[in-house]
Amino acid sequence: MAKKTTTKARASKIPKPKRSARPCPQLRVTVGGLVLGPGKIDLIEAIDRTGSISAAGRDMGMSYRRAWLLADTLNRMFHEPVIKPAVGGVRGGGAQLTEFGRRLAAAYRRAEERTRLAVEQELASLDPAFRRR
Amino acid sequence: MAKKTTTKARASKIPKPKRSARPCPQLRVTVGGLVLGPGKIDLIEAIDRTGSISAAGRDMGMSYRRAWLLADTLNRMFHEPVIKPAVGGVRGGGAQLTEFGRRLAAAYRRAEERTRLAVEQELASLDPAFRRR
Repeated sequence: MAKKTTTKARASKIPKPKRSARPCPQLRVTVGGLVLGPGKIDLIEAIDRTGSISAAGRDMGMSYRRAWLLADTLNRMFHEPVIKPAVGGVRGGGAQLTEFGRRLAAAYRRAEERTRLAVEQELASLDPAFRRR
Repeated sequence: MAKKTTTKARASKIPKPKRSARPCPQLRVTVGGLVLGPGKIDLIEAIDRTGSISAAGRDMGMSYRRAWLLADTLNRMFHEPVIKPAVGGVRGGGAQLTEFGRRLAAAYRRAEERTRLAVEQELASLDPAFRRR
């Protein structure tokens, strides 16, 4: 019974398909043919929070394999690494952000917030025509 | 020979995979579970320019079927239609934008320009780390 509750709690963390009542902007930045979007930035922030790629993946309801592939892509997108092995942690096998990784996530969030504001303001007059499902 | 030139000219209009030297932002707005992005807005503008869904599709290097499906989705995303049958044209079967369709495309382009500027400014300090392929 206790186990069932745990499973439920974890399941609730899985992102649901977004059917927001409001128009929901998504910022994707293509860099050398690869896409930097909210999924990769969410993963970066989850790694920062949890201290490991597998824990971050679990937190986001994705497989370890998928989390690892995203992390690997992130490290190949730039000349500087985004994620590095944790050193000196209590447990082995952890991961942490580089200074560049932290700056990247912060810069993306600032650009995302400006994008959200731009969509809200520019599309405001059309808003009554948007279908809510 | 003349035919070959025509084919070449048309082929050059097909969008190539973007491998821009600069980070290339893409704005997607999810409305009621459906996505409004650059592809649909490009199609709206091509219909405005060419006066028909099939000509717009050809211009963008997509099949008539795909162009028609995108146009249909656009008309289902909002309470107001975006594209309507052309009336009083010289040829039958044309399409034109509604007033709402024109306003939608213009609003999206304004939001997109602000997004482009936000990405350019917020990610500028990280720019040297971006890989160019």
